[in-house]
Amino acid sequence: MNEQLLFNLLDLAGTFAFAISGATAARRRDLDLFGILAIAYITACGGGIARDVCIGAIPPAGLADWRYLFTAVVAALATVVAYRQVERLTYPVRLFDAMGLGLFAVYGAHKALLSGANAEVAILLGMVTAIGGGLARDVLLARVPIVLQREIYASAACAAAALAVLGERLGWSVLWATWLPILLCFALRFVSLRYRWNLPRFGSERGAD
Amino acid sequence: MNEQLLFNLLDLAGTFAFAISGATAARRRDLDLFGILAIAYITACGGGIARDVCIGAIPPAGLADWRYLFTAVVAALATVVAYRQVERLTYPVRLFDAMGLGLFAVYGAHKALLSGANAEVAILLGMVTAIGGGLARDVLLARVPIVLQREIYASAACAAAALAVLGERLGWSVLWATWLPILLCFALRFVSLRYRWNLPRFGSERGAD
Amino acid sequence: MNEQLLFNLLDLAGTFAFAISGATAARRRDLDLFGILAIAYITACGGGIARDVCIGAIPPAGLADWRYLFTAVVAALATVVAYRQVERLTYPVRLFDAMGLGLFAVYGAHKALLSGANAEVAILLGMVTAIGGGLARDVLLARVPIVLQREIYASAACAAAALAVLGERLGWSVLWATWLPILLCFALRFVSLRYRWNLPRFGSERGAD
Repeated sequence: MNEQLLFNLLDLAGTFAFAISGATAARRRDLDLFGILAIAYITACGGGIARDVCIGAIPPAGLADWRYLFTAVVAALATVVAYRQVERLTYPVRLFDAMGLGLFAVYGAHKALLSGANAEVAILLGMVTAIGGGLARDVLLARVPIVLQREIYASAACAAAALAVLGERLGWSVLWATWLPILLCFALRFVSLRYRWNLPRFGSERGAD
Repeated sequence: MNEQLLFNLLDLAGTFAFAISGATAARRRDLDLFGILAIAYITACGGGIARDVCIGAIPPAGLADWRYLFTAVVAALATVVAYRQVERLTYPVRLFDAMGLGLFAVYGAHKALLSGANAEVAILLGMVTAIGGGLARDVLLARVPIVLQREIYASAACAAAALAVLGERLGWSVLWATWLPILLCFALRFVSLRYRWNLPRFGSERGAD
Repeated sequence: MNEQLLFNLLDLAGTFAFAISGATAARRRDLDLFGILAIAYITACGGGIARDVCIGAIPPAGLADWRYLFTAVVAALATVVAYRQVERLTYPVRLFDAMGLGLFAVYGAHKALLSGANAEVAILLGMVTAIGGGLARDVLLARVPIVLQREIYASAACAAAALAVLGERLGWSVLWATWLPILLCFALRFVSLRYRWNLPRFGSERGAD
């Protein structure tokens, strides 16, 4: 399997997982069918579209490549049609989501480097790819984004993007430079969920809103 | 009347209608004069600016062409100065809005195709042009966007953009490829309002927030 | 001191002031460490990134230049580590913020003109540079942006950007075309705070939300 194909497959798997999280959240907020499709698509592709706009990859792949839209629509319709089944799948969905998080961070950093951007841009846009869709989902649902409030989520994506950039700089093989960061992100997510790790908070209005 | 002039006129008419909806919503939320002008402008031009950024039309026409800003400012000032009159105009404003919706979807899809984008990009960016400003308005007013919650609105824009792209692909004359989709969008809006059509919803928290 | 260096220094000073306002707001809303860093960075660099995307300066300087990220992270950490001290500094922070507002407006307008954009684009993007980060901060904190609701803030940025563009058009020296608008913005902010000037409001739901 060549490098490009591998990355494309990773990208679609992450798209599916993220679209399910978007569709589930939209359905819970009682959006209509269009709203569910739109939030699923934006959750899945919003981060990648922001990345592509920032590196000048015009038009963004999330808009131009029918496979992203198709994948997001299938995930959204599955959430609508088989909601009870999807609800029971909390654990597998969390697995998918953690995998998607690492995949997107690595793919985003990789694509930024390919466009000629420096390491800082690659790490930041890896994170944008990974958490941008979730931020857009929460902004459209008029709530403070979960990933800014708790859990080791964005920071796991940051670690994955940084390791991927480091790997490319050190000339690791594609296999290592791709899968090691994804595994790191996945492990950070699951260890932090298992042991309820959180980043520190310092809020002076704790519980106020 | 040549093709370019026709599209420019359509675009300004839509701009005016959308700016009124933005200014009205901003005034209801008690924003100050700058806030009303800003929301009116963003509602009118936000979708087009996002479209232009995604197709690489730099700087975006919504920023560079003084007629858009001028039209939005006039609409906002009219809403401020003659609010009672504007409030009484619910029905004509809704007419304008439905017309603007179709116009923007068609114009957005058309401009994307002209930039060399494929049919999927054109349909998605047609929708972005049509509903992007309204999404930005609602996000800035800290509420879940109306178009994701109910009514045949975004889906009417989607139908118009898709028909416009189909028309261009099938080689329809500009007249047909422009006005038929706008008419379709307009008809969908009004029939759905008249008969209270909505897309299905599946919310598990109905009435919860 | 040459022109480019002067602008770079101005830009970093503004970045620091804005990052403090973002970090303070994020900490008050009880976001975690990543959330505080992210909001500080977005408040400081969000406006500039939007400006660069709109003029095609790819990748945006806010992402590519490590000094912006570094400055924002230092400001955020200072807010976390020395919050009591920062809280006592309301007055100096307001000074910084008013200076940053003018600096960003002038720098944004200047960079847009350098990219070949017209006067309208330069004024609008000067404002986007100055208030875009604050808008993004408030949107991510799920509240209606303060600058759209009250105080002479966005309008002071608008005046500064317009004066900067006028100065460049009239061939003023860099010193005048830079510092006069910044001084104007600063003076407008402080006179309006001192005398509690506000733009008019017309809300029909005053006090309703």
